Formats: sequence, structure tokens, C-alpha cells
Amino acid sequence: MPVNLLVIGTGLIGGSFAKGLKMNGQVCHVAGYSRNYTTLQEGIALGVIDQALTKEQLPEAISQADVIMLGVPTLSVGHFLPMINQHKKADAVVSDAASVKGDIVLAVANALGDVPPWFVPGHPIAGSEQSGIQAANAALFENHKVIITPLESTNTHATALITKLWQSLGAEVVTMSVAEHDHVLAATSHLPHALAFTLVDTLRQMEDSLDIFRFAAGGFRDFTRIASSHPTMWHDIMLANKAAILQVLGDFREGLNTLENAIKHDDSEAILSMFTRAKQSRDDFAKLLEQQTSVSAFDDKQ
Amino acid sequence: MPVNLLVIGTGLIGGSFAKGLKMNGQVCHVAGYSRNYTTLQEGIALGVIDQALTKEQLPEAISQADVIMLGVPTLSVGHFLPMINQHKKADAVVSDAASVKGDIVLAVANALGDVPPWFVPGHPIAGSEQSGIQAANAALFENHKVIITPLESTNTHATALITKLWQSLGAEVVTMSVAEHDHVLAATSHLPHALAFTLVDTLRQMEDSLDIFRFAAGGFRDFTRIASSHPTMWHDIMLANKAAILQVLGDFREGLNTLENAIKHDDSEAILSMFTRAKQSRDDFAKLLEQQTSVSAFDDKQ
Repeated sequence: MPVNLLVIGTGLIGGSFAKGLKMNGQVCHVAGYSRNYTTLQEGIALGVIDQALTKEQLPEAISQADVIMLGVPTLSVGHFLPMINQHKKADAVVSDAASVKGDIVLAVANALGDVPPWFVPGHPIAGSEQSGIQAANAALFENHKVIITPLESTNTHATALITKLWQSLGAEVVTMSVAEHDHVLAATSHLPHALAFTLVDTLRQMEDSLDIFRFAAGGFRDFTRIASSHPTMWHDIMLANKAAILQVLGDFREGLNTLENAIKHDDSEAILSMFTRAKQSRDDFAKLLEQQTSVSAFDDKQ
Repeated sequence: MPVNLLVIGTGLIGGSFAKGLKMNGQVCHVAGYSRNYTTLQEGIALGVIDQALTKEQLPEAISQADVIMLGVPTLSVGHFLPMINQHKKADAVVSDAASVKGDIVLAVANALGDVPPWFVPGHPIAGSEQSGIQAANAALFENHKVIITPLESTNTHATALITKLWQSLGAEVVTMSVAEHDHVLAATSHLPHALAFTLVDTLRQMEDSLDIFRFAAGGFRDFTRIASSHPTMWHDIMLANKAAILQVLGDFREGLNTLENAIKHDDSEAILSMFTRAKQSRDDFAKLLEQQTSVSAFDDKQ
């Protein structure tokens, strides 16, 4: 099966997907498109892609591709769909790697009238503190989960092909509904990012902020690491997964109010039982994570 | 200067203080007291202390000590003060290592009528994911900050002696006011712990909590690491530093409300500028931390 792959958006995720499939022989030719043509030339030099596309060459490349991976930011996926729909081969399969799935499905439906059977929404739970095609890493997805969220209308062959490609990169592919994906990611990734950004911005505004950061130590460093993530990407995610994020944020705020009241009223039992439950869950999670996979120290792009 | 050291509360901090000073020759004899006599015998075997004290032997040991370090939990410090005051040598110096200083000073004043000149409140910003005398480590405080918060009434010789002992262990001793200490620690340590405990407890209560933890990755692991901290110790800190914690928690809640409203109303500019400012501050903090010191991956006891 000689596969022609087209990657639109050749950042860390799109680039790593391309490089891994080139190296393991699952694809025979990779064309890449990016707003920034220079990075595409770097991509060729680094062995990530075979062909750098200009905007003008994109329609023809679409017409030749068997698989199209959209590695562009969450809010840009909808932009490419009409052109893909117009030029793609009948049996070509299209997928994406964006962090939110509900708004992607909506954007596709808005662009095309409905979600076509050849579109398989997907999301690799992997990343790095680095970004860009220069950071492309064929082993990025090894032992990481990739969530795909096919709809009832999605072609099972399309789903199977995308699953096979991710599995060939060493990923564990898990299927769930769009709504479940967006809720789980809101809870484990989007909410923590919102809290970390908020905490650092709150401390930054305090009068003694210089002292505050001066006396912060390792626990604070770990807790706020995700506040060093890409502001634009996380802005996009906050809006793209708005409903689910507002829901978990509301749940969190309730929990915080409970703790605040317990502290206010010296309610020892409430504080201690909350902390004890949380520690137990966190310890269980740590064991689960150890058993499952090796994870990188910084899985930013969740 | 042959110094007799008495450590009351021989956990990680008290034990490491004792072991370091024994090893570098700053003290000639270390007596240790703990509620758990067995751990004291382990302490002798491990070279952390020279003498294990029963409750009955404590008054006599107090009368022989030149320096007394209180390594007991925050809310227990006040308990030992009357006995120390009754039996100590006139020129003996007493210090502590608790995470909150305002309530310690208050507990001392409550126990003794006022804060005596021989008491130097202190707090080493160091720790480990391990605890107990078994984890005592002579190098624990190397390149770490120790904050001392002497009052106007504190004897300058007492402050100088405690400073010298910490410095001999490789620590950088910084002096600040009780109020400043408690505010800075509330912001950088106590609030993050409150948020981490709250987040994990909130997620734990969700219907799909198993999936939620199953799909959490490295970013979540780092963000919630401090929720694996000791529940009782952190319960004590929440109540001991109540006023400062409620203040920074209120500031944080305001920041979170601002973000929540921005997401609700698709206020792109507000979200993006908040995330951009936070990333800049976090990146600056990371650079500061790199320049300053090596910190352990897990500074739990802050």
C-alpha cells in the first residue's frame, strides 16, 4: 500500500506524524504545507517531508494525497475543509490532531453542510516543551494515547486506516465520543492550564511579586510549568472547548468555595477529609501512570 | 564552641538539621525527642542523633542544651514552650522550622506572656517527597533558602547563632518580617497546595473520574504532584496561616472570575493578554530559579 501523505500544518505534531510514518515505511511520499514556507524547506533538510508546497500548489497536492493530516491550530481546521472537499480523491481519508473535537466537528459541518464519512477526528495526547518542524520527533507518540472520536457516519475503513497509522508509531489508539473527549480533556488539561495561567498572573500583580517569585521553590515550579505553554494555542483551546471548560471550571469553583469556607470556619474535619481524599486519588493516579506508559516530563500539547 | 543541640521533633527537617550539624562539627552532642521512641532508636543507628529521650528525660535534656530546634508540626510548637521556658539555660537559643510564622509567634506569646528574646522563628524552604528520621539528609539545605523572622525584641546574638548554624549547612539565610513571610508563602506554596488538592478532589467526584485520570498525562502529573503531600501537615498550615491564605485565595478567585467571564463572552483579547503576561512571568521565574540554586524536584515542605 503505497500511501501519499499530505500534512497541512507542519508543526511539532504534524511534523512528528510525517517523520515517523516516513521512517517506518507506512507512507512513500510526504507533501507539507505551512504558512511559513521557510520552515518547509527546513523540514525537507531534516527528513520530515519530501515536498514543500506553496499555497498555489496545495489544491494539486490535495488531489494526489491518500491521507491528509491537519496539524493546524484548533481554530484553523475549518478553513481548509472546503478546498479539501473540492479537490480530494474519493477514497482519501482526512484526520486532524487538534485538542478539542466538538468545535472541529462543528467547523467541518459548517464548512461542508455535514461531517463527511472520510473525516476522522483525532487527538494525540502527546507533546513537548519544544514546537515547530525542527522539533519533529519520530518517536513522539510511542507509548502515548491517541484518542479518535469517529461519528456514526464516519467510514469504518477511514477509521481503521487512521488507527493503523497511529498504531504504527507506537501509540495506543482509544475511541470515545466527541463529548466525552472534550469533557475529559477539559478536566485533565484545559482546566489545569486555566488555573496555572491564572495563578501566575494573580501573583504577578501582587505588590511584592518580585519577592514572591524569589522565594518560590520546586513545588511552585512544577505546579506552574504549564503556564509557560503557548498563549495563542491555549487561547484557542479555551474558546474552542468553551462549554466543557466552563462546566469543569464551575465544578472546581464550587470545590474551592467549600475549602475556603472550611478554612474560614476552622472546619478541621472538612479540610482534612478533602486533603486525604485528594492525596489518595493523586497517589492512585501516579501508580496508574507508572503502569501505563512512560510519559514525557512536559506534555504540553494535550 | 562545644554546642549541645536538642531537637524536639526528629522528622525530615529536624533530623536533617541534626545530622548536618553533627557531620560538620558545629555541635558536639545531639539529643532527640519524638512521640515515637522507636524512630529515635533508628535515629541513633543512622547517626542522626546521639541520645534518644523519653518524655521523662526531656526536662533534663532541655536544661543541658545550648540550642533547641523545634521540628514538630506547626500546631504543636506552642505545646513545648512552657517546659522549655521553665528548664532552659539562660543563654540557650530556641528556634523552629514551621511553615507559618505568625501563628508560631502568637502561640509562643500565648504560652509565655510574650515572645522571649531567645526565640528565633525560622523556616527552611526545603523538603523532600520522603519524610521521617530515616530520610534525614545532611545535604538537604544546601543551596536552599532559610527564612528567619526575628522580632524587634529578639536577641541579636540568638539570631546570629541560628543564622550561623543554617549557613554552615550550605543554606542562604534571608531575614524578613513575620507578615511578609506568611504572605509570600501563602502565595507561592499554600495557595498552590490548596488548588492542587481542590482540583484532584473535584475530578475524583466526577462520574467519569476513572477515564479522567486514565487520560491525564505528564502536564497533569506535574500540576497535581503537590496534592500527594501530607494531608495533616497541610491541614495544619491552612489553619495556621488562615488570614494570609484567605487573602491570596480571594485574589486568585478574582483572577479566575475574570478568566471565566472572558471565556463566557469570547473576549479573545482578555484571554490572550492574560496568558501572554502569565507565560512571560513564568519564563522569567524559571530563569531566576536556574540562576539561583539547584532545587529538588519536589520541595514539599515549604
